[in-house]
Amino acid sequence: MFENKDKTHIEQLGEFGLIEHLTKQIKIVQKSTVKGVGDDAAVLDFTNKQVLVSTDLLLENIHFDLRYVPLKHLGYKAVQVNLSDIYAMNGIASQITVSIGISSKFPIEAVEEIYQGILLACDNFQVDLVGGDTTSSLQGLVISITAIGHVDKNKVVYRSGAKSGDLICVSGDLGGAYVGLQLLEREKQIFLENPEIQPDLEGKDYILERQLKPEARKDIVVLLDSLEVKPTSMIDISDGLASELLHICKASEVGCRIYEDKIPIDPMTYHTAVDFSLDPTVCALSGGEDYEILFTINQKDYDKVKNDLDISVIGHIVDKNEGAAMISKSGIQHAITAQGWNHFNK
Amino acid sequence: MFENKDKTHIEQLGEFGLIEHLTKQIKIVQKSTVKGVGDDAAVLDFTNKQVLVSTDLLLENIHFDLRYVPLKHLGYKAVQVNLSDIYAMNGIASQITVSIGISSKFPIEAVEEIYQGILLACDNFQVDLVGGDTTSSLQGLVISITAIGHVDKNKVVYRSGAKSGDLICVSGDLGGAYVGLQLLEREKQIFLENPEIQPDLEGKDYILERQLKPEARKDIVVLLDSLEVKPTSMIDISDGLASELLHICKASEVGCRIYEDKIPIDPMTYHTAVDFSLDPTVCALSGGEDYEILFTINQKDYDKVKNDLDISVIGHIVDKNEGAAMISKSGIQHAITAQGWNHFNK
Repeated sequence: MFENKDKTHIEQLGEFGLIEHLTKQIKIVQKSTVKGVGDDAAVLDFTNKQVLVSTDLLLENIHFDLRYVPLKHLGYKAVQVNLSDIYAMNGIASQITVSIGISSKFPIEAVEEIYQGILLACDNFQVDLVGGDTTSSLQGLVISITAIGHVDKNKVVYRSGAKSGDLICVSGDLGGAYVGLQLLEREKQIFLENPEIQPDLEGKDYILERQLKPEARKDIVVLLDSLEVKPTSMIDISDGLASELLHICKASEVGCRIYEDKIPIDPMTYHTAVDFSLDPTVCALSGGEDYEILFTINQKDYDKVKNDLDISVIGHIVDKNEGAAMISKSGIQHAITAQGWNHFNK
Repeated sequence: MFENKDKTHIEQLGEFGLIEHLTKQIKIVQKSTVKGVGDDAAVLDFTNKQVLVSTDLLLENIHFDLRYVPLKHLGYKAVQVNLSDIYAMNGIASQITVSIGISSKFPIEAVEEIYQGILLACDNFQVDLVGGDTTSSLQGLVISITAIGHVDKNKVVYRSGAKSGDLICVSGDLGGAYVGLQLLEREKQIFLENPEIQPDLEGKDYILERQLKPEARKDIVVLLDSLEVKPTSMIDISDGLASELLHICKASEVGCRIYEDKIPIDPMTYHTAVDFSLDPTVCALSGGEDYEILFTINQKDYDKVKNDLDISVIGHIVDKNEGAAMISKSGIQHAITAQGWNHFNK
């Protein structure tokens, strides 16, 4: 991943030195941040707002592979994954805390690269880094992020509010992150077998970015607010459309019908999936890591969203006893399961 | 640590099953918890309060050794470590999030034991578990906890408020957790050399509890409030008295004088340290993990705290240019360094 020569090693700086070194770069932009890094706890002030808290733990070789994930991208993505959860409550993220466990044999520059990605994400999304913990790890790299946000009491959207007749909407397009991962995995295998061969990733920028540098959909929260649409339920797509749909159905005690031909899939995702002999619909349903927003709206709000190119209406909510199903392009109804749909495991 | 026979393995339940299984036991007690586990983020409401956030990452074989730390104790301690940071801001902890990374080969009962300890701590300290993440780990056990608390705007106490002339106070007694650790390490070595020999820990309950089951000092925050004392600065003692004193001196731009004979050390800590040929004062200054509260008060508040047996006045704050020093029992002045005092590294 990086050269160890002529680098500053973490053990030279010590824990306090490392924290001081890394936190020097932090800028505070949120009014709600009263005190960030540097005391026992961060102090935040959210007068009259509700506070949102979400946390994620990312472990090397479970959630990421340092053989093809650049450290800066890793830091950036780790933040996005967490911000996405705040936006999925219809809130705005305002602070994060970051804990990193890293081998003391790593050069300081490696931790700096991760932080560069983290701070870039903070900057792009106007989020303050207000605390954390840096510790040595005897095993792999560990990144734990907690995101904090706020929302007006009357605007918070749970998974549980979908009602029969509501329209099911999704932002952006799906499956790209998964297909991007297949591409990286293939090139890794080729590289492992013959390190002389340069990776062939040309022209695949979009799906590689979907995997390596996802962008949480803060813009969708802002857009819905400007359109004066309050969704009835909302969730971010981290595990794939199928799994998230089932979460909404379970929490809301409803069923759903979605239409295969309405699922937004980018042409590059589609064609690359086909090249890999993968069904693009399965990639969208079960691939995961797209970090798009899945939400339901009352039918009366349809006119407000129908012209937005970034929002696709893919189906509607039905009664619980009708179950969760997808109508395929050929008109056949398939039950949706947590693993995608019931053809997935055949 | 535990038998693998006839246990339910995590992989049988899957991630969602595991989360559902574990979160069934969670009870919500805090009015500020609007929505806990079960959505993209927890929703909290702290009308007119400032919000405190602190986070810690605990890694196997860096922060704990499963060969002598029972899993339930580990869960309990992991929570205490975090709550301690909230109390050290003069606030009250109200929520935590917990992320755990654990090998999928662990039996479900192992994760349950950790959660039992976590939930016992939540119960004892009236804290709600409102979110988290459970993931498999290819390496060791990983526990990341974020604690959230609240405090009236005019009651928050930073590290930075100490003034020349203020009195330096400490709760409880120091060094016990470190001496308890030495005892456990010795017995582990004996066990590794001869597994037939039973550990000899009899009569050492107090210092073993200081190491294995520390209690964060919420009671000190409550006590100071009832005494109508607002400290001028405050920090919890996680790395040892010396290191925390230097944090306060640096943040407050002051110096300090403490008196060796005033440092509270329990007789069992004292005698066990001597048995190990350790200087009890060094254990108190540099041992760490006591999770007591170090704070400074204005001299006018002395009468309010002087009769409390759980608070020791150990010195006073001086001007920055006088530096940080300890007056030994024999009347000699020693500079305090991050490693304790300057005799420590000789």
